Amino acid sequence: MPSTEDELLEAIARELAVRDERVVVGVGDDAAVVRPGEGDLVLTVDALVEGTHLPRGELPSPVDLGHRAIAVAASDVAAMGASPRLALAALTLCPSAQAGWILQLVGAMRDACAGLGAVLVGGNLARGAELSLAVTVVGGVAPGGAVLRSGARPGDVVVVTGELGSAAAGRRLLAAGGPLDEADRLAVQRALRPRARVLEGRALAAAGATAMIDVSDGFALDLARLCRASGVGARVRTADLPAGQRARPDEVLGGGEDYELLATLPPPAVPTARDEVAALGTALTCVGEIVAGAGVIAVDAEGGAAPLPPVGWDHLA
Amino acid sequence: MPSTEDELLEAIARELAVRDERVVVGVGDDAAVVRPGEGDLVLTVDALVEGTHLPRGELPSPVDLGHRAIAVAASDVAAMGASPRLALAALTLCPSAQAGWILQLVGAMRDACAGLGAVLVGGNLARGAELSLAVTVVGGVAPGGAVLRSGARPGDVVVVTGELGSAAAGRRLLAAGGPLDEADRLAVQRALRPRARVLEGRALAAAGATAMIDVSDGFALDLARLCRASGVGARVRTADLPAGQRARPDEVLGGGEDYELLATLPPPAVPTARDEVAALGTALTCVGEIVAGAGVIAVDAEGGAAPLPPVGWDHLA
Repeated sequence: MPSTEDELLEAIARELAVRDERVVVGVGDDAAVVRPGEGDLVLTVDALVEGTHLPRGELPSPVDLGHRAIAVAASDVAAMGASPRLALAALTLCPSAQAGWILQLVGAMRDACAGLGAVLVGGNLARGAELSLAVTVVGGVAPGGAVLRSGARPGDVVVVTGELGSAAAGRRLLAAGGPLDEADRLAVQRALRPRARVLEGRALAAAGATAMIDVSDGFALDLARLCRASGVGARVRTADLPAGQRARPDEVLGGGEDYELLATLPPPAVPTARDEVAALGTALTCVGEIVAGAGVIAVDAEGGAAPLPPVGWDHLA
Repeated sequence: MPSTEDELLEAIARELAVRDERVVVGVGDDAAVVRPGEGDLVLTVDALVEGTHLPRGELPSPVDLGHRAIAVAASDVAAMGASPRLALAALTLCPSAQAGWILQLVGAMRDACAGLGAVLVGGNLARGAELSLAVTVVGGVAPGGAVLRSGARPGDVVVVTGELGSAAAGRRLLAAGGPLDEADRLAVQRALRPRARVLEGRALAAAGATAMIDVSDGFALDLARLCRASGVGARVRTADLPAGQRARPDEVLGGGEDYELLATLPPPAVPTARDEVAALGTALTCVGEIVAGAGVIAVDAEGGAAPLPPVGWDHLA
């Protein structure tokens, strides 16, 4: 195992050696040199921090951490209807993280990137008291083709991919520490190994999505953000929300870390979008409509309507 | 002052609003949408972490921190002979960092980017126990024009910009806490507000630099890295190293955080390089030669030669 920083960096460079037309110079120089290809680029960075997104004082599985860190950053690219192309990782190492663990993490990030059609081309290592991992992803999209949060129009249908609340349920089950059945384990898997809905995002963009956001902080909060950016309101049928099997109602609405895509579509675009997303093995559920005005109204199974508070994670709270 | 995350994000978006042909969509959506322009891109990320690069348990000046975080990341772009174009910042907030401080930090990063010809287009906020700031910079360079670490050839002259050891001296003076004279204050300034040698890097690339690296971890260590990447050795005249006025010999050789550029040039290219760098107000000093073989030899003022140990920061140590 490497014992100095330079030995470790050389081992990492070996892990990340790649032959890819987008990569002129990969890991090992002051910066990577890349040719990301035609079209507009999308840029995003997302971080996982010990005590906030990761358990405090406990070294997580490097494989889970690597896949998750790439997924949460790539999810932002997916929500633009774009494709991840290149990634960088800035790792702050808590004292218990040793070289073997770091190399497993790097390998997992490489594999997670490859699974999304991207390449991990660089990063940074620093020592700190707590573990954190910030991943930057560069994505590509046809010129002018990015789907923003701000394009929703009254009459559009609100759709969501997959299921909501499972990641929150999984975090709760992990914290409780009891025995897990099969459905519990699926929820835990969603918490530890979220997937970025990259192909679904491209399908929604191609089908004519007018606005899109990823559900990272909670459905209600992220829908409120989309509505505010678009200058519209929404009516949501809460009974239609695709609840994960183990998710409680508050976890469905505001659990966060679902990394599903929340999009708006003109009604004629819905059947195609649903078919294209279904062809990827992912459900697409219509959960409401965009309306003129502001704010989100929740409509229950009996037709009762009430404002939906924008519940979800507030990173300042 | 903003009291929720979304209010803060909106205040940040206002701070970072920009009209720039490279930015299609800036802060406020899932990702930025950019058109970085022609040529190859260079990608790098660098981080400042509490307790390692920043004093533990003390909230630094947001203006110093913002300028420094951009400079250390942009320095890697400079070392490729490239120009910074776009930046992202991932901020982990210690509990004492409040909205006003965050907005000052963001404003300083915006200003530091503008000073380098770049635009801060996005980022991420997370809470943590310790402060850290990871900055990603996307730079541009003519196709095939990036200057790597690996191009040094026997007979090339080793040059370094500016002065060495001042940042380390400044950190020492800050830690000692006594009264500071004018030269002390200049050293402290180098520690708190390093500058990325972007124009110098472009001038060295244009003059024909065969290899380049930024001196971030220490002159001796970074020269050893350049030599190893190039498969060559070097002889360095230690008496010729441009020592900062307050720098001790160990700080000159291995103090780190100088953010000067260390480059190699064919001898005929040296006069032009020196003139072009001098025109930017920066000294360019010839400190040795590249030789066949491996390792760095230090030659003292009396002509005595001894191996130069690769002293500097080891982030794993």
